[in-house]
Amino acid sequence: MAYTIGVDYGTNSVRGIVVRCSDGAEVGTSVFNYPAGEMGILLDPSDHNLARQHPGDYIDGLEQSVKGALSEAAETDPAFTADQVIGIGVDSTGSSPIPVDSSNAALAMQEAFRGNLAAECWLWKDHTSVEEAARITELGRAHRPQYLAKCGNTYSSEWFWSKLWHCLKVAPDVFDAAYSWVELCDWIPSVLAGVTDPKTVKRGVCAAGHKAFYADEWGGLPDKEFLAMLDPKLADLRDRLYEKAHDASESAGELCSAWASRLDLPEGIAIAIGEFDVHYGAIGAGVDEGTLVKVIGTSTCDCGVVKANKEVADIPGICGIVKGAILPGYYGIEAGQSAVGDIFAWFVNHVCKGDGNTHAALTKEADTYGPGEIGLLALDWNNGNRTILVDPLLGGLLVGQTLHTTQAEIYRALIEGTAFGARMILERVEEYGVPVSRVVCAGGIAEKNPMLMQIYADITGREMLVSGSSQTCALGSAVSAAVLAGSAKGGYDDFETAQSKMTRLGETSFKPNPKSQAIYNELFELYKKMHDAFGGVSTQDLGGVMKELLAIKERERKR
Amino acid sequence: MAYTIGVDYGTNSVRGIVVRCSDGAEVGTSVFNYPAGEMGILLDPSDHNLARQHPGDYIDGLEQSVKGALSEAAETDPAFTADQVIGIGVDSTGSSPIPVDSSNAALAMQEAFRGNLAAECWLWKDHTSVEEAARITELGRAHRPQYLAKCGNTYSSEWFWSKLWHCLKVAPDVFDAAYSWVELCDWIPSVLAGVTDPKTVKRGVCAAGHKAFYADEWGGLPDKEFLAMLDPKLADLRDRLYEKAHDASESAGELCSAWASRLDLPEGIAIAIGEFDVHYGAIGAGVDEGTLVKVIGTSTCDCGVVKANKEVADIPGICGIVKGAILPGYYGIEAGQSAVGDIFAWFVNHVCKGDGNTHAALTKEADTYGPGEIGLLALDWNNGNRTILVDPLLGGLLVGQTLHTTQAEIYRALIEGTAFGARMILERVEEYGVPVSRVVCAGGIAEKNPMLMQIYADITGREMLVSGSSQTCALGSAVSAAVLAGSAKGGYDDFETAQSKMTRLGETSFKPNPKSQAIYNELFELYKKMHDAFGGVSTQDLGGVMKELLAIKERERKR
Repeated sequence: MAYTIGVDYGTNSVRGIVVRCSDGAEVGTSVFNYPAGEMGILLDPSDHNLARQHPGDYIDGLEQSVKGALSEAAETDPAFTADQVIGIGVDSTGSSPIPVDSSNAALAMQEAFRGNLAAECWLWKDHTSVEEAARITELGRAHRPQYLAKCGNTYSSEWFWSKLWHCLKVAPDVFDAAYSWVELCDWIPSVLAGVTDPKTVKRGVCAAGHKAFYADEWGGLPDKEFLAMLDPKLADLRDRLYEKAHDASESAGELCSAWASRLDLPEGIAIAIGEFDVHYGAIGAGVDEGTLVKVIGTSTCDCGVVKANKEVADIPGICGIVKGAILPGYYGIEAGQSAVGDIFAWFVNHVCKGDGNTHAALTKEADTYGPGEIGLLALDWNNGNRTILVDPLLGGLLVGQTLHTTQAEIYRALIEGTAFGARMILERVEEYGVPVSRVVCAGGIAEKNPMLMQIYADITGREMLVSGSSQTCALGSAVSAAVLAGSAKGGYDDFETAQSKMTRLGETSFKPNPKSQAIYNELFELYKKMHDAFGGVSTQDLGGVMKELLAIKERERKR
Repeated sequence: MAYTIGVDYGTNSVRGIVVRCSDGAEVGTSVFNYPAGEMGILLDPSDHNLARQHPGDYIDGLEQSVKGALSEAAETDPAFTADQVIGIGVDSTGSSPIPVDSSNAALAMQEAFRGNLAAECWLWKDHTSVEEAARITELGRAHRPQYLAKCGNTYSSEWFWSKLWHCLKVAPDVFDAAYSWVELCDWIPSVLAGVTDPKTVKRGVCAAGHKAFYADEWGGLPDKEFLAMLDPKLADLRDRLYEKAHDASESAGELCSAWASRLDLPEGIAIAIGEFDVHYGAIGAGVDEGTLVKVIGTSTCDCGVVKANKEVADIPGICGIVKGAILPGYYGIEAGQSAVGDIFAWFVNHVCKGDGNTHAALTKEADTYGPGEIGLLALDWNNGNRTILVDPLLGGLLVGQTLHTTQAEIYRALIEGTAFGARMILERVEEYGVPVSRVVCAGGIAEKNPMLMQIYADITGREMLVSGSSQTCALGSAVSAAVLAGSAKGGYDDFETAQSKMTRLGETSFKPNPKSQAIYNELFELYKKMHDAFGGVSTQDLGGVMKELLAIKERERKR
């Protein structure tokens, strides 16, 4: 028997799982909530764009979550012993770059930078770098259009270079003290491997390609001339980053003795290359050509793959098209919605001042309405729009409320808004030739909210399949570790085989109801009008929007 | 010593007051909450447009509120005795027509119509007649443009003929059983006067002119040819309505013996002509040429007067311009916002699920933000837009919400939205030559919420004066009764003198802060864009709205 470990760094917690290679059974799981800040996120009350995270929480969480999962595995699986573990894979949110010193230690863990938010990890959803992102987009369009073409023609404030540049501007002391910067998903494997020189950290092409303008075709990271247009110090930094980034066919290293003893695992086992959570999540959900994996959580990421021997057109507004970002030998295509569960949580926590039971109660009540019956339409942009507008400077919108509109109706409108956003993405990728013959959903919301899944099916007109694992990202990391370890050690020699053995679909799926679909098609036309008008795509005649919402509502309520 | 009584029929309750004629002191007050329905309003869960009220509650409320006020007067004013009461004035919401039988009794109080919503009073905010209103507008524009010109060129579903026609369509049995229809503000005086023939009910020109297309210049009510285009039965009904409507220089009758003994008041005292609440409210707040009175409550009504010897242009989108509607000898000009306090109440009750303390708590928290700091913009159309769009088929809209937007920020946005709506009205009436040299606010919200008043001052750029009475409508009714009774009985011979003695301003006023005004001017430009786009006035480029809201927010929060 062989086992691998998957470690998944989410927005509020880290999860470790122990997976049996033969059948993908998840025999042990443990979750560690980051203790710092608000639900693990360091905030600045004066700037709602700021979101940081403490690297010390990552280290504590690594130990706690893995040990917890191992201990549960020992309890639940009589055959399990820790010496059967043949590899570890790690995924994380991103772009979440961490400033490190020359020994690969996080600056934030040094006394001198205690409490300095710029020295912490710059969490994916940090939006303080809006101006820098806009300037990078501008310079990129003018001087390096090829860079931008791979990330939907707009660089985001959520990404690597925007964040580093912003740090350089607002906290030059931190920038100067940082020998290098490492993405969280690369940093944890390097810690496990005992790497003490940032230049030898094995960087994954997933983060590099999607967020840092890395591509083999132009020699890796952006050239110094371009970086110097941003700031000469960024050009200098290039030498202290990396020359080469790798796909999951490459090892990130071997478990060092210190961490082997700390975790009570065999020294020298394989450490998979780090990828972003949703990319490994896509693998854990069984991604292949023709499958779109939607990881629906606080935000949603959409992942697809296309064989690398084909031509893939650049897709406007798509976060990234990166060779090897998900599966070796395939282009990885990533799109996403900046906030999904976060929008529902905002509504429940900030507007309704609800508690843990409120989501379930609102879902139940919202489910008593049929399509069109609420007379409301929401734009799902409370955290900006990642795909297809790539614009963080957008806001939420709700239209159609009367003097009788209820919490549950608004809650349903917010869910529908995210579903309309999902449909925009689906239609965009298909329009540019990425085949989508099935949609597999993963993530807590996909599992827990059948009403939401039915609305997604009705609005997109697609059957929504659901991953059989509730820990798809961690499972994908474990799959990657199993492939890296290889069949000789009890793993697998390729991803296709590993996925067929270790991943599965859930039994329930959600098929579109043709009647609901027809109503939602009407509403989608209104959504598109609003999307294009407020997204700056085109001027729209909105004079009929409220009337149409009302007319649809009255018609549907009378049915 | 002489006293008059003012009776004010509001949306949820009726209030009686006893006023000393010499100085306007309100020596007795009593409020009666209508017991039927939800806060006095009969609703239909399947149709949120429906709002009716039970005439029996009006009768009970008349007795209770007047007796309560008299009894309080006797306690608080040693000089008071009931035989010193020289007149009664009545105001009410409207257009709130009541179907009556040939003896002037309300159909709803007959056994045969018990529980029949169509037989109840059709409350002002009933919006079931949207189709009829649109058709009346269409026919009016084609055949009787002069009718429509006096009511902003669009007939409303809140008005008399729309409601009667809708009743004829959906409840022909009720329509056929109704000998006539009487506005609530005319019906109560007729009840007090013991009128038992609907044709002899003295109708006020206020309701008739504003809501029923009445004008002396075309011979009273709409001609039969026009009414027959709606339905021949409406043309027939014209004969059972009235030939002539009157301003407040005319008496509605004298207190009949039955009601004199029921209320323990002198038989035969003067009963003032009925007017709508805000029209008498305008008088109670000291309206004269150059003064705009804003009665801010569940909705807002704006009233102004212009001497009748001048030419007054028709003002597009203004609810009505009616000679004698407020003060005899003046054109009365009425505009309004369909929901103001109702929007705040909706948010607190339905969205926040708050209680009686929530308004105060949200106001306090909302007051910690400065202009522009919330990054939100609301259209105040949850109940449609009365002025200047005259369109009930509009809905609310909120834009700019993030993942951190709080209840208090939304609450402030809703207040600001109503203030922007108020500014649209102010600018429209001035544009068409109605002078506004001062603004006097009345109503519960104006008195109780200084934050709202300051926002109104900052957004409109006008000083907001506040009426010295908290019962301006009832006070105006009492003023009218005092003028009708005349100086010989201890009243007054003209409104100007009566207003100068019996009405007063509050001590506090709210002056615009130039810095706040400048920020709100920026936001008003965005409001106008949204107003025109969603109101169907013109197509607008909205691509920058969210970005501008964000930019203003970030700028103001950094100040």
